[in-house]
Formats: sequence, C-alpha cells, structure tokens
Amino acid sequence: MQKYNIVLIGAGNVATQLGLALKRANHKIIQVYSKHNPSAIELAKKLKSPFTTSLDEIISDADIYIISVKDDAIANVANHIRLNDKIIIHTSGSVAVDSIKSCSKNYGVFYPLQTFSKNKKADFKKVPICLEANNKKTFKILETLAKSISNNIHKINSQQRINIHIAAVFACNFTNHFYVIADDILKSNKLSLDLIKPLIAETAEKIKNNSPIEMQTGPAIRGDKKTMDKHLKMITNKKYKQLYKLVSKSIEEKG
Amino acid sequence: MQKYNIVLIGAGNVATQLGLALKRANHKIIQVYSKHNPSAIELAKKLKSPFTTSLDEIISDADIYIISVKDDAIANVANHIRLNDKIIIHTSGSVAVDSIKSCSKNYGVFYPLQTFSKNKKADFKKVPICLEANNKKTFKILETLAKSISNNIHKINSQQRINIHIAAVFACNFTNHFYVIADDILKSNKLSLDLIKPLIAETAEKIKNNSPIEMQTGPAIRGDKKTMDKHLKMITNKKYKQLYKLVSKSIEEKG
Repeated sequence: MQKYNIVLIGAGNVATQLGLALKRANHKIIQVYSKHNPSAIELAKKLKSPFTTSLDEIISDADIYIISVKDDAIANVANHIRLNDKIIIHTSGSVAVDSIKSCSKNYGVFYPLQTFSKNKKADFKKVPICLEANNKKTFKILETLAKSISNNIHKINSQQRINIHIAAVFACNFTNHFYVIADDILKSNKLSLDLIKPLIAETAEKIKNNSPIEMQTGPAIRGDKKTMDKHLKMITNKKYKQLYKLVSKSIEEKG
Repeated sequence: MQKYNIVLIGAGNVATQLGLALKRANHKIIQVYSKHNPSAIELAKKLKSPFTTSLDEIISDADIYIISVKDDAIANVANHIRLNDKIIIHTSGSVAVDSIKSCSKNYGVFYPLQTFSKNKKADFKKVPICLEANNKKTFKILETLAKSISNNIHKINSQQRINIHIAAVFACNFTNHFYVIADDILKSNKLSLDLIKPLIAETAEKIKNNSPIEMQTGPAIRGDKKTMDKHLKMITNKKYKQLYKLVSKSIEEKG
C-alpha cells in the first residue's frame, strides 16, 4: 500500500492518536507542529519526528498536511500556510471543508469518529473515518490513507458531518458527563462508581443490536412520578436537579 | 446450596429476568402474580409455574415472597397480604425497606442493579445485588439467595440505595435517552446510529479503568464556544437545544 510523508499540525488528543496510528501503518510523520513547545516535544518524541513551534517553519515537501488543532484555530492555521497542490486536510467534526481552501488546490476532511485521550492507545481498525474532499483525486488519496488504518470508511459531506458531530456530543460527551454526575453522587454517599459499572456497560451493550428507544427503562419512561419526586427531593446539587427534570421530561415526551 | 420456594409478585422486566435467573439456579417459583392476565400468563409459561391475578389467592406456604411491581404499587401490595414470619422482599431502588413491614416480621430489599428487558436474557453473575433486611436472620437468607445467582453482593441501607438509584438513572436511563436523541438526529440526516456505535462503546469502555472526569472530551470541556454555537444553530428540536445548553454548561462548570 502507498506510504505517505505527512506533516502533523497539532499535538492534542486526536493528533496524538492519529499520528501514532499512521506511524504504525508505516507512513512517515516528517514534522510535528504545535504552538506549545512542551506539546510539540512530547508528540515529536512519540513519533520520532522533528518538530516546530512556528507555522512559518512548516516544511513544504510533504504529501499530506493534517491540521488537527482546536476548531477555532483551523482557519487561522489555514490562512498562514500556502501549499499549492499538496493535500491538506483537517480532522474536525464541525468545520466545513471550505474553511481550509485557501491553503491548496487539494483539500479535504479526515474526521475520525471516536473519543481519544493522549495516553490511551486507540485501536483505529474499527474507528469510522468520515472523508470529504474537494475533488476525486484527493478523495482517492484520502481513502487510501484511511484504509491503511481503518476498515470503517465513510464518504460524508460537511452538512452530514456536523450532524454526526452533534449526535456524537450527545452520545459520548454528554453521557460521559452523566457518568461524572453518577460518580459524584455515589462518592457523596461513600459509595464507589464500581457499583454501577456493570449497569453502564450493559446500557451501552444493549443498543448494539437493539433500537435505543426500545431499550429505555427507568422512572421517566414508566411515568413513575412518585419516584421522580422522591429523587428530586434527594438531589441537593441545583444543576443536577435541573438536568434530572429536563431529561426526564424529554424521555416522557418521546415515550 | 439451599433451594427456596418462591412466590413472584409482578411480571415486568425485573420480575421476568429475576424469576428466570432464580429458576436457572434451581429455586422453585411456585406462583406468579400479576394483575394483568396476559403478563401473568406470559411469565408463568416461561417459569413453568402456576399464576394468579388476585392478591387474595397468593399462597401462604412459600419461603420467600418477592414484590417486583411498580414503585407506586409496592405499598398497596404490602397492605394486602399478611405472611406472619415468611420472608418478604421488594426489588426497588427507591422504596424504603420499612414500606413493606406490615406484611411480615421478616422483610428486606433485594435490588438488582441492572437494566433489564423482558426479552433480553440477563447474565446475573456480575449484576450487583444490594441487600437490606430488618434482622440478621433474614439478611443471611437473602445473602444465600443472592449468592445463588450473583458474585456481586452488597449490604446497602435505604438511604444509600436511593442515591445509587439516582446515580443509575443518570448513568443508564439518561445516557440511553441521549442514544435515542443521537439516533433521531442521525436518522433525520439519513445516517445510521451504526456510525457512532464504536464511539458509544468506547465511551463506556474508557471509564472501566479511568475516572470519568478525566475522560471528558468535546467542545464544552474545551470551552469551544464557536463549535457549541454552531451546533445550537443546527439543532432544530427545542428540547434538544435546551438539553445541549444545560449539559454543556454543567460540563463547563465541572471542568
């Protein structure tokens, strides 16, 4: 399979795990950029690649440039570099493909749909990768790159992608926050989150082969007002109380 | 191990899966009660046991009576039956143990901390079972019963139990509702929930060995207002918009 020389712009969770996966697939990360010196050094060390903290020093002879920085910073990076016809892509769920068109004639999006942490090795094989490009030739190359690390490739336009990202925020970021709240409530009662870990695992497991709406359980879907009132009386944290009310109402309306 | 003769009062998700697990462990379900004839028949068939739809016909010579009905109905059932010194227990997370003390001198709670569906076989071995009883002798018997189906037994008082239930509502019922919302958003864009199933699985997987607060990702924890505003503009459903705002705010405050 084709191997590419890649410049990685960014050193956060996505850049780190994507860089490591690309390296494992024998692509060459020929430079890492981060405006923060320690982050640049840390990732460059992991990838055994040179690094820079200045956009002006980004080298010009790579095959593919991957921008994997905060959404707000993508346009700024794109306005700073000129690559003629080299391929440039970003990895964001919520930024339109056009936002980096000033960089090059060949641009696209390479959005790995997963939650990453710097220090937890990500198994990319099953990670859905959402691809978009401004022309067929670029798309083909992105497809080759994506296939070298994952078996789960999708052609997704910018409008679909932002909706996928919103769905992901609900199903991942927001559910994790509810784990945080559960942990907090248990700790306040000298209990451990371990107690409900089987429940958390089963809740996620159930929807692998069932529609989530059919799997809904709990007081709200049963219309069990007495239990909900009892819970609301027990919850002392104002924000948790508000959340309990609003989510329960939303469940009742869907049910 | 000691085998018991059991009367099962209720025929919902918990009653069904608990009844099946007890039967697999060679206890004898000698009667099933449900006020709904079809539910009583359905569960009695699964358990190969007699059934009744009248509380007055509940037989008096079982060892253990399990009340597994809606929380609101537990007190009503308890007021209807008198069992002297037979053991009576309920399976609810949010109902105090005292609420069934009118039934018998020996009463308790047997709360299996899991999400159950009538038609999805539950593997009880790892299900945490929270036990409480009004005396030591009853507790011992409940412990024997619990150990016959699970390796994960906990002594939990009524105050702790309601807090566990609240935590479970957040970590299970509310997260499942967010899977429902994600599914809805994806379907509206002609996309499948399959796309984010690896993400859902990883989100639940991550917290097995990490504190959820450290695993928080997404625009809210990054303080990425631009992305959040973009998402809010795209979300047309009013309730989803409200939820997005409130949960994001709660994440920002915790972060």
